[in-house]
Amino acid sequence: MPNGPALYDIYPSLGLFMPALHIPLAGVLHYDGGMSKAYQTLERHFARLSSLNDALGILSWDKEVIMPHGAADRRADTLATLAGLRHDILTAPAMTDLLADAEAGTTLTAWQKANLAEMRRSHAHATALPGDLVEALTQAITRSEMAWREARAQSDYAGFLPHLTEVLNLTRQTATAKGQAMGLSPYDALLDSFDPGTRQSHIDPIFTKLEADLPGLISAVLEKQASLPPALPLTGPFPVPQQEALGRRLMQQLGFDMSRGRLDVSTHPFCGGATYDVRLTTRYVEDDFIPAMMGVLHETGHALYEQGLPAEWVSQPVGKAGGMTLHESQSLMVEMQVCRSRAFVDWVTPHVREAFGASQTPAWQAENLHRHLIHVQPGFIRVDADEVTYPAHILVRYKLEKAMVSGDLSLADLPGAFNDGIKALLGLDVPDDRRGCLQDIHWPEGLFGYFPCYALGAMAAAQLRTAAYEQSPDIAPAVAQGDFSPLMHWLRTNVHSRASSASMPEILQTATGFPLKADAYLAHIRNRYLSRSAGA
Amino acid sequence: MPNGPALYDIYPSLGLFMPALHIPLAGVLHYDGGMSKAYQTLERHFARLSSLNDALGILSWDKEVIMPHGAADRRADTLATLAGLRHDILTAPAMTDLLADAEAGTTLTAWQKANLAEMRRSHAHATALPGDLVEALTQAITRSEMAWREARAQSDYAGFLPHLTEVLNLTRQTATAKGQAMGLSPYDALLDSFDPGTRQSHIDPIFTKLEADLPGLISAVLEKQASLPPALPLTGPFPVPQQEALGRRLMQQLGFDMSRGRLDVSTHPFCGGATYDVRLTTRYVEDDFIPAMMGVLHETGHALYEQGLPAEWVSQPVGKAGGMTLHESQSLMVEMQVCRSRAFVDWVTPHVREAFGASQTPAWQAENLHRHLIHVQPGFIRVDADEVTYPAHILVRYKLEKAMVSGDLSLADLPGAFNDGIKALLGLDVPDDRRGCLQDIHWPEGLFGYFPCYALGAMAAAQLRTAAYEQSPDIAPAVAQGDFSPLMHWLRTNVHSRASSASMPEILQTATGFPLKADAYLAHIRNRYLSRSAGA
Repeated sequence: MPNGPALYDIYPSLGLFMPALHIPLAGVLHYDGGMSKAYQTLERHFARLSSLNDALGILSWDKEVIMPHGAADRRADTLATLAGLRHDILTAPAMTDLLADAEAGTTLTAWQKANLAEMRRSHAHATALPGDLVEALTQAITRSEMAWREARAQSDYAGFLPHLTEVLNLTRQTATAKGQAMGLSPYDALLDSFDPGTRQSHIDPIFTKLEADLPGLISAVLEKQASLPPALPLTGPFPVPQQEALGRRLMQQLGFDMSRGRLDVSTHPFCGGATYDVRLTTRYVEDDFIPAMMGVLHETGHALYEQGLPAEWVSQPVGKAGGMTLHESQSLMVEMQVCRSRAFVDWVTPHVREAFGASQTPAWQAENLHRHLIHVQPGFIRVDADEVTYPAHILVRYKLEKAMVSGDLSLADLPGAFNDGIKALLGLDVPDDRRGCLQDIHWPEGLFGYFPCYALGAMAAAQLRTAAYEQSPDIAPAVAQGDFSPLMHWLRTNVHSRASSASMPEILQTATGFPLKADAYLAHIRNRYLSRSAGA
Repeated sequence: MPNGPALYDIYPSLGLFMPALHIPLAGVLHYDGGMSKAYQTLERHFARLSSLNDALGILSWDKEVIMPHGAADRRADTLATLAGLRHDILTAPAMTDLLADAEAGTTLTAWQKANLAEMRRSHAHATALPGDLVEALTQAITRSEMAWREARAQSDYAGFLPHLTEVLNLTRQTATAKGQAMGLSPYDALLDSFDPGTRQSHIDPIFTKLEADLPGLISAVLEKQASLPPALPLTGPFPVPQQEALGRRLMQQLGFDMSRGRLDVSTHPFCGGATYDVRLTTRYVEDDFIPAMMGVLHETGHALYEQGLPAEWVSQPVGKAGGMTLHESQSLMVEMQVCRSRAFVDWVTPHVREAFGASQTPAWQAENLHRHLIHVQPGFIRVDADEVTYPAHILVRYKLEKAMVSGDLSLADLPGAFNDGIKALLGLDVPDDRRGCLQDIHWPEGLFGYFPCYALGAMAAAQLRTAAYEQSPDIAPAVAQGDFSPLMHWLRTNVHSRASSASMPEILQTATGFPLKADAYLAHIRNRYLSRSAGA
C-alpha cells in the first residue's frame, strides 16, 4: 500500500510525544539598560504577548467549535495558564524600566510612538490591580456565571443577587484602582479597557440625542410599516449545505481571504481566531436562511477589519484593531448599512434564489426579501433586536450600569429600573427578569462598560458609510453590482490600515470630518424606513 | 427570530477582542525556601508546563487538520513562543533550588518520588545545553528540513549532505553535553529523551538476536506465503463516509471515549491533542478501506493508553505516558497483535461487509480479508512495511545512527552503508536515495535515537500480548466476540495506570516477568506465518 497511511509513524504528534528538545529561545525577560535598545526590547516582548493572544484565540475557538465536552475542565486550566503567563510577562518588574527608558527616547517614528503608548496602556491596565483583587474577581466571576445560567433559566433574580453584588463590588474596586492609576473616572477606566480613548463625555451627548429622538422615531417607523402590505413568507426547508455554500459565496464576494480564515458552526456565533487566521462561526436553522446569512455577513465585517490590519505591525499592540466600537462599526457597516440596502438586496436576490432552487414567485422578489430584512419589531431580547430598536436596549443598560458603578443604584432596584427603562423607550412591559435584566451575560461576567460600544458601533457604521459613499462616488454603483472592492478600499485606507495608531474618536474625525455623532444613524433610519420609497 | 444568532454579539471571541482584564494568577516563579513547600511548589509549576504542553498539542493538531495555509508563518511563531516559555519556566534559576530542596525532603510517597525524578530528568535535559547550541540546532533543523523536502524529491543526497553534516555535528555536541550532565554515553543521552530509562545495553542483545533470525524468517514466510493461493481482490469503491463510520464504530468497540477525543482527517495520520482530549487522524483512499481501518486501529491503541493514564496525576510528569517504546507497544498491540489476529478478523468481517454493503462472496470471507491483513512483502519504504519486515528497516538505521553519533561513519559513506544494510537484511537493491537513506524525516530533524523505539515497541507489544493472554484466560474468547474490555482491563492495570512511575524496562519486567526480549515477537511471527494453520 504505497499510498497508505504511515501506520507506524506517530510523528508529528507534538503535544503528546515530542520531548522538549529543540526549542527556540523566545528570550527571557532580561534588560540591561539603554534607551536605544529599550524600545526594541519591548517590541520583542510584545510580539511574545501577541503570540500568546493568538494561542488563546485559537484555543478559545476550538473550545466553542471542536472540543469534546469531556475536555472542558482541562481546557479551562490551559486558558488560565496562558492568560496567567501573559499577565506575568506584562507585569514583570523589568517592564517598568523598559517603558520609562523607551519613553525617554527621542528617535521614534509616529507609529513607534503610538505603539509605545499602547504598550503603556496595556501595562497600566495590567498593573493597576493588586493580585488579590484580580484573584477575587476571577473567582467571583466563575461562581457568578454558573449561578447566572441557572438563575436566568428560572428567572430568579433574588437567587442571583448575592453573586451580582459580589461581582459589582469587586468591579467597583477595579474601576477605582484603574481610574486612579490612569487618571480617569472609574467608569471611564472600565470603558477604556474595551474601547481605548472613548470617554463618558463622548457618549453622553450622543445617547441624550438618541433618547430624545428614538421613541418618536420607532413609533413613526412602526406606523409606516403597518401601512404597507405584510411581507410574504419565504418557506423552506433551507438545507444546511446550501445555506453554508451561500455564506461562503458571500464572504468571498465581500473580499474575505479564505487562505487566512475559516467558516464553521457554533452555538453562539462569533468572530475569533488569530492573526492571519480569522475564524467566523454561525449556526443554521432549516426553516429560515436569513439568520445565518446575515450572521455570516455580520461576522465577515469583523473579519475584513482583522484581515485589513497593516501587515508590518501585525504582532505589535499598535497593529491591533482599535477597540469594540470600531470593530462593531465594521460588522454593522457590512450587515446593516450595506447588505440590508435595497441596492444590495437587488443584486443578491437571484443568488439566493439560485442557492435554494427557488422560482421567481412574488415572495422571491427583491422587494419582498428586502421587506424581511428591514422588518422592525420592538421586543424584549437585545440580541434579537432590529437596527431601529437596538439602541434603546443599550440606552437602558448604559444608564443603569453607570449608576451601578457609581453606587447610585441599589441592586435591589435593578429589575424595576430595567423594566421602567424598556417601558419608556420601547413601550413594552417586561414580563419576567429572564427577558429583563437577567438576559445578558455581561454583568454576571463583570463586563461593565462594554454595552455602549454596541450602539456607538451602529452610530459609527452609519457615519462611516455616509462619508465613504460621499467621498467615493464609485462605491454605490459597484455595490449594486455585488462588487465590494471600492468600499473595502475606502475602509482599508480610512479605518483598517490605521489599526490602533489613533483612537476611535480620532479615526472617526479624520475619516468623516466630524466627531462621532448620532446624526448619520438617525438620517439613515429616516431614509430607509420613513422616506417615500422606504428602502435606501 | 427568537432562535436566530446573536448578530450583535461577538462575545466570546476571546483572542481578538477580549482585553487582558480578568486573568487568574497562575503564580509567578517565586520561591522563598523551605523543604516542605518545595515539592508542592514544583507541582504547581509542572502543572503549568502540562497546560503549555496541552496548548502545544491542540495548536499542533489544528495546524495539521484545520489551519488555513496562509496562517503557517504566524502559527510557527506561536508554537515557538509557547515552547520558549516552557523552556523558560523549566530552566528558571529558582528551579535548581526547588529540586534540590525537594530531593532533600523525606516525607514523599513513592509516586511523589517518581514524580520528582521525572521533574529532575526534564530539568536535566533542558539545562544541559547552552543557549547558543539550542539556537544553532533549531536554526540548522529549520534549514535542513526545508532542504530535505527538496532533496528527497530530487533524490539528491549530495545536495543535502551539507545540511545533514551541520545537524549531525550539532546533535553530537548535544549528545555529549547531555551525556555529561546526566552521566550517560552520548547515544544513551539521546535515547533517554525519547524513551526514559532505555539504554543501548538493553537494545543491543535484542537487535543482535533479530539480525541473526530475521533474514531466514523472512525467507521462510515468503516461501510459505507463495505456497498458498493468492488473496482475492476486494474491489471498491469504498466511500469515505462509510469508511469513517466503520472507523468510529471500531474505536468505540475498543473502548475509546468519544467525549474525551476526536477522529479527523490529515495528510499524515497521527495521535495528538491534549490531556482528556486525545485526537486521532487518518486519511482515506476510496479504492482501499484497509489502510484507513488499520490506521484508525493503530492510533486508537495510542489513544487508549492516553485515556487510561491515572486521573490523579494527570497534570504531573509522572502521570504522562512512559516514552516512545511503550506508546508504540500499545498501538502495535491493538493493530498488529490483536486486530490482525484470525479471531478478531472472524468477528470483524461481517461488520466490514455491512459497512460497505458487500455480499458474502468468497472475497468477503474472513479467510480472505485475513490474507490481505497479514500479507508480507519486502519493500524499500519503512512506513509501508508489514510487521515481519519492519524491524529490518530499524536494524539498518540503528546501526548507522550509532556510528554517525560516535563519529565512526562518515556521512559521505551513508548512502552506500544504508543500501548495503537493506541488501543484507531484505535482499533488495535500493534504486535511489529517495527510497534509501533520504526517505525519513528523522535524521534531517535531528531525531537521532528515535528509530529503535519503533522496533522495541513491536517486541514489547508481542511480549505484553503473550503475558496478557496467559494471565487472563478470558481475554481471548472476549476478543473473538469483539469485546475488548478484559484486554483493556489488563493493559490499564499493568501498563496504562503505571504511567511514568517506572521505566519501560521495569514496567515490562513487572507485567510479563521478563526483561524486554525478542522472543515473544519471533514466536508470534512463527505462529502467525509459519505454523500449520498460519493465522493466529
